[in-house]
Amino acid sequence: MEGKLYAMGVGPGASDLITVRAARILSRLDVLYAPAGRKEGDSLALSIVREYLSSHTEIRTCHFPMSSNDEEKQVVWDEVAQQLKDEVMKGRQVGFITLGDAMLFSTWVFLLARIGRQEWLEIIPGITSFAAIAARTVLPLAMEQQSMAVMSCTAPEAELEQALQNHDCVVLMKVYGRFAMVCTLLARLNLFEHALLMADASLPGEQCWRRLDQVAIDQKLPYFSTILVNKQWRTGE
Amino acid sequence: MEGKLYAMGVGPGASDLITVRAARILSRLDVLYAPAGRKEGDSLALSIVREYLSSHTEIRTCHFPMSSNDEEKQVVWDEVAQQLKDEVMKGRQVGFITLGDAMLFSTWVFLLARIGRQEWLEIIPGITSFAAIAARTVLPLAMEQQSMAVMSCTAPEAELEQALQNHDCVVLMKVYGRFAMVCTLLARLNLFEHALLMADASLPGEQCWRRLDQVAIDQKLPYFSTILVNKQWRTGE
Repeated sequence: MEGKLYAMGVGPGASDLITVRAARILSRLDVLYAPAGRKEGDSLALSIVREYLSSHTEIRTCHFPMSSNDEEKQVVWDEVAQQLKDEVMKGRQVGFITLGDAMLFSTWVFLLARIGRQEWLEIIPGITSFAAIAARTVLPLAMEQQSMAVMSCTAPEAELEQALQNHDCVVLMKVYGRFAMVCTLLARLNLFEHALLMADASLPGEQCWRRLDQVAIDQKLPYFSTILVNKQWRTGE
Repeated sequence: MEGKLYAMGVGPGASDLITVRAARILSRLDVLYAPAGRKEGDSLALSIVREYLSSHTEIRTCHFPMSSNDEEKQVVWDEVAQQLKDEVMKGRQVGFITLGDAMLFSTWVFLLARIGRQEWLEIIPGITSFAAIAARTVLPLAMEQQSMAVMSCTAPEAELEQALQNHDCVVLMKVYGRFAMVCTLLARLNLFEHALLMADASLPGEQCWRRLDQVAIDQKLPYFSTILVNKQWRTGE
């Protein structure tokens, strides 16, 4: 049997928000690579897929440092990319899982940049966090001729402001640590009535704030916090 | 048993690109509403989910006119929204399916605008066409501090140009009928090397063009055609 690498987006957090395709592939893997937030730490992605794995699948968690030390990151990505290739060359069925979608704001893409397009590579798309949040909060995203921007709050404030001005619908990802700045921006643009904040969407600790003007500016937010803005829709209850 | 309405995104076309949650819900529905492109026509959304349905599920296809006659559309949406509510009030488990994600460029949102947020309503997110195309073509979307815009090509050309200038990654949906305009725009912005076109992603007739400068400007495209642009990545083979 020929070796194959499956890079799979496993969605926002709930186990049943992975695709049927991913569930089927997971059940017949020889080895699964799962990213972990911290060294020796738990892997949220792994907890999502665990129920689909068969007992013979070997599990390897890998820690990608969040540090700003670029060289340290490069070394880890190089190593994991090489391991994935080596496993495929041995003829094994290899999986790599990543939260949300595999190709959007995803660690997997750093590995892909090293692996390249290959006959033995298949990528399985996943449910993005913003699709899950829109569904859960019943706040639609863009429709008809409208447009949507998906931004990381780590981007310069001027770019966030431009996106909020130009698009009907804006997804603000990675709010963590930038909540005060984003709130000031939304207040200035008079968008509080059209915005909501969700943390840990589809997970047991899911939280939603529909009135951002009532959230303390120093509110401690979970790492997975996202703001949705839709100028054509009001978010209040 | 209390009635419930499930609005489900069923992904881009392949049956196994629906979520495990949607598959489970589909298997226990009393009645399923499926949109059809034409009157008495086939429903692509229905063909995606058919294998998950049980034999007792009643299937009702509904045709939403594409005509520009707004009044005609309103009447149909009003009628279908009322039918969905009536079925729920009878205590039935009711499904409504829509291609891609349920909340992004989706007919479902016109029904939602009439139904409102309800205790008996649950929305299930789906795989967006652009996530499926990025995976299939191995072209990443935005990462890190980058941004992505999702545009409908029915928007004014100036808005499309602005999005292509401001964002690293742009998804151009609904290319059908506007291919020549979009190609001229991509040529002017020198983006051919960073763009690709995919039609009918994940369906048997899937087609991909990685060299847009080699596609005839009058190329007849399928209805579901999307262009992905990523300025940070080259699309050529």
